[in-house]
Amino acid sequence: MNYQLHYWPHIQGRGEFVRLALEAAGAPYVDVARGDEAAGQGMPALHGLLQDKTQARPPFACPVLVDDKRVIAQTAAILYYLGPRLKLVGRSEVDQAWAHQVQLTIADVVNEVHNTHHPISAALHFEDQQAEAVRAAQAFLAHRLPKYLAWFEAALRRNPARGGDGNAPRLVGGRLSYPDLSLFQLVEGLRYAFPLNAGKALAKAPAVRALHASVAQQKRVATYLASPRRIAFNNEGIFRHYPALDPAPQSPTVE
Amino acid sequence: MNYQLHYWPHIQGRGEFVRLALEAAGAPYVDVARGDEAAGQGMPALHGLLQDKTQARPPFACPVLVDDKRVIAQTAAILYYLGPRLKLVGRSEVDQAWAHQVQLTIADVVNEVHNTHHPISAALHFEDQQAEAVRAAQAFLAHRLPKYLAWFEAALRRNPARGGDGNAPRLVGGRLSYPDLSLFQLVEGLRYAFPLNAGKALAKAPAVRALHASVAQQKRVATYLASPRRIAFNNEGIFRHYPALDPAPQSPTVE
Repeated sequence: MNYQLHYWPHIQGRGEFVRLALEAAGAPYVDVARGDEAAGQGMPALHGLLQDKTQARPPFACPVLVDDKRVIAQTAAILYYLGPRLKLVGRSEVDQAWAHQVQLTIADVVNEVHNTHHPISAALHFEDQQAEAVRAAQAFLAHRLPKYLAWFEAALRRNPARGGDGNAPRLVGGRLSYPDLSLFQLVEGLRYAFPLNAGKALAKAPAVRALHASVAQQKRVATYLASPRRIAFNNEGIFRHYPALDPAPQSPTVE
Repeated sequence: MNYQLHYWPHIQGRGEFVRLALEAAGAPYVDVARGDEAAGQGMPALHGLLQDKTQARPPFACPVLVDDKRVIAQTAAILYYLGPRLKLVGRSEVDQAWAHQVQLTIADVVNEVHNTHHPISAALHFEDQQAEAVRAAQAFLAHRLPKYLAWFEAALRRNPARGGDGNAPRLVGGRLSYPDLSLFQLVEGLRYAFPLNAGKALAKAPAVRALHASVAQQKRVATYLASPRRIAFNNEGIFRHYPALDPAPQSPTVE
């Protein structure tokens, strides 16, 4: 039986972390809201799931994964569920817990990235909070992003196992895992949203860059990225490019 | 062997969700940073853990739970680990996944509450973003809080199992689980931060209020709340009371 992913059909968003895992594993799945309404898919199916009052354990929001009778919401929880089933994490509880911990930290970065363009509220338009967004992005790029990247860099460098593909850095053991895919996506998104400042920040994270490059070359991932299944970045998802939020970095000043 | 909880010693913060689980279960634990430096505890122990460069899988931030050789960060991941060990969730994978999904949604609310007083950046003082905070709090109280509370209310009402303690509402099956404790804490925090507006929002969530009341009466929880181990709310944690962020609710207007 195919996995069913319920997510907004026009954006990468949080659903993309799930799509990447399914694609990298070659798992059969239906991206429901992008399907044909005549086949019971499309947006009516997504809305039907989110508004189903007979669901005893309702999802708060999408992405939602449906696997036969299992209905799971929350990106990190979906990936925790899929990880061992897609062989995108080892069998040990210790490895699975670490993978999950990394994923939850990626989720924190994603929240903070969203906050750079919607600091006041997701319920208001960007244009209604643009001045605040400029300040929020500045603080994110100056304080938070370097701290997060330094942590990912340390996690990659301290991993005693080496990757199988040309000794590529890996977050969990020596093989590709779903947090690797999510960190790839985070780098993709940061480079789209902040082309000037992401480059500066990533200059200090060579292992993160090497991980990103190796994931992009994984066969199934490369096929996916080149396919129409990969939705292009746009200014309705998490990672949005507003030039005002990505000012040219200043050269380091000499004190 | 005792559990070791590493968290800031002067605030409830995210660590409080872990403290409540440990306390409600009567589990032996050490709140490390509140301990005696002479005994290897206190803030030096917390900083030592966070800055330990020999840790192959370093925590990004606290709370961190240490259980013998296991080191686990991220509040929801800690509770996922502790849940079955403390008998604060059933044995089935389905129940554990649902409990985790609820917990992750509570974490989302917590992030949004923090954003009400620090919309621009956690790296700046409240006073440097007060005007923005007023707008952010207004949007949270108008749009997000009612949506979240309606979801918790639905999850409680649709649960086919009934609670053992006077038929109190429960989130996962019929017995007290760690998400119940966390939802209790969320209500506590909302009432502290937004005494005027939380009351208005909770008026529409009677099952959430009943859950909160029943958790407060659980014997070990009640003992904990009355003890010096329960740190009082203050304006350095997640839930902060700034009157400017909690204006008197307007009466519903007749269109």
